[in-house]
Amino acid sequence: METIPTSTLKRLPVYLEVLRQMKQAGLTEVTTTKISVFSNLHQTLVRKDIGFTKVIPDKAKFNIAALQKAIEELLNWSDTSASFLVGVGHLGSALLGYQEFSQRGLSIVAAFDNDPKLIGTEVHGVPVYSALDFTAMAKKQKIQIGIITVPPEAAQLIADIMVHSDIKAIWNFTPQKILVPPSIIVEYVDMFASLAVLSRRLAEKQ
Amino acid sequence: METIPTSTLKRLPVYLEVLRQMKQAGLTEVTTTKISVFSNLHQTLVRKDIGFTKVIPDKAKFNIAALQKAIEELLNWSDTSASFLVGVGHLGSALLGYQEFSQRGLSIVAAFDNDPKLIGTEVHGVPVYSALDFTAMAKKQKIQIGIITVPPEAAQLIADIMVHSDIKAIWNFTPQKILVPPSIIVEYVDMFASLAVLSRRLAEKQ
Repeated sequence: METIPTSTLKRLPVYLEVLRQMKQAGLTEVTTTKISVFSNLHQTLVRKDIGFTKVIPDKAKFNIAALQKAIEELLNWSDTSASFLVGVGHLGSALLGYQEFSQRGLSIVAAFDNDPKLIGTEVHGVPVYSALDFTAMAKKQKIQIGIITVPPEAAQLIADIMVHSDIKAIWNFTPQKILVPPSIIVEYVDMFASLAVLSRRLAEKQ
Repeated sequence: METIPTSTLKRLPVYLEVLRQMKQAGLTEVTTTKISVFSNLHQTLVRKDIGFTKVIPDKAKFNIAALQKAIEELLNWSDTSASFLVGVGHLGSALLGYQEFSQRGLSIVAAFDNDPKLIGTEVHGVPVYSALDFTAMAKKQKIQIGIITVPPEAAQLIADIMVHSDIKAIWNFTPQKILVPPSIIVEYVDMFASLAVLSRRLAEKQ
């Protein structure tokens, strides 16, 4: 399978969103120029990124449905992967209720916490188990994706448990950098990094 | 005020987290080598980044409390900025309950939605108003930061309203790229971009 550059991968969801809105508006065909305008990205980039789909335009016009399907396949969003989430606080709970994931190939099938008040309950329809059950359940269900939404000081411990449970990819929502074997995929959603840039740039302006 | 590179700004919260944990463990002093190990970042980077604080080490050892304070000042996290959030769905609600922001200079003082069932209620103690009240309230309270957690197709409209309401910095949690005048600061927390990379890298491995 071809390795697609990270920068391209990060832009593909933007195109998907543009295509979705165009389809909703009743359009069936689109040019890269139009995608470029609506995604606020340079045409050269858009052309290069769309090129990875191998979809052939008809007189420079792409069929919107075909392009959506091809991008979703590139992202493996056409298949649904089961995942486990650890840490059912505010953020974890929100992710459990975030329906947008299911359209993007991700299904959170179980959540874990160490709070006895949460264990045995359901949050947005997802059952919450004791963190002690993580390894046995993950191995049994051959779960490949683990989501970390615990406090940062617990992130490394949870990552270790995940690696030990044969998790292949970790989605870390804490600012804590985690150390894992090189074969494990780690992606961060670091809100505080983004907030840091926002706060400083605002202060620099004053 | 000195312009700090974005890459440095994004790493500063990582150091803050490392320092916080060290302080909690009872330490009072730290070397850049130790910060480098615990943040999983190269020492050269750590030294360069810490250099922006102008804190002088004593025999290569930094006072942890002084370093924390200096980083927080660089990020303008020592002051608290009031902000408004628009879109009280799962993600918006979660952010309203996310206490971690208050330690990072951000206070969400009001939320806005167009759902009559939400307007007039409080979510995690934050009052929810009609989106129609945004401009008048933002101007009156001189709000500088707007947070967007609406569905992506509404993001541009909300951004336009924010700009019109004299908001100076927009924190956009949707995958929708927004067009604003160049003087407006825009930061994205794009979960789907991160999920795209995670999903593809996992698929490439199989």
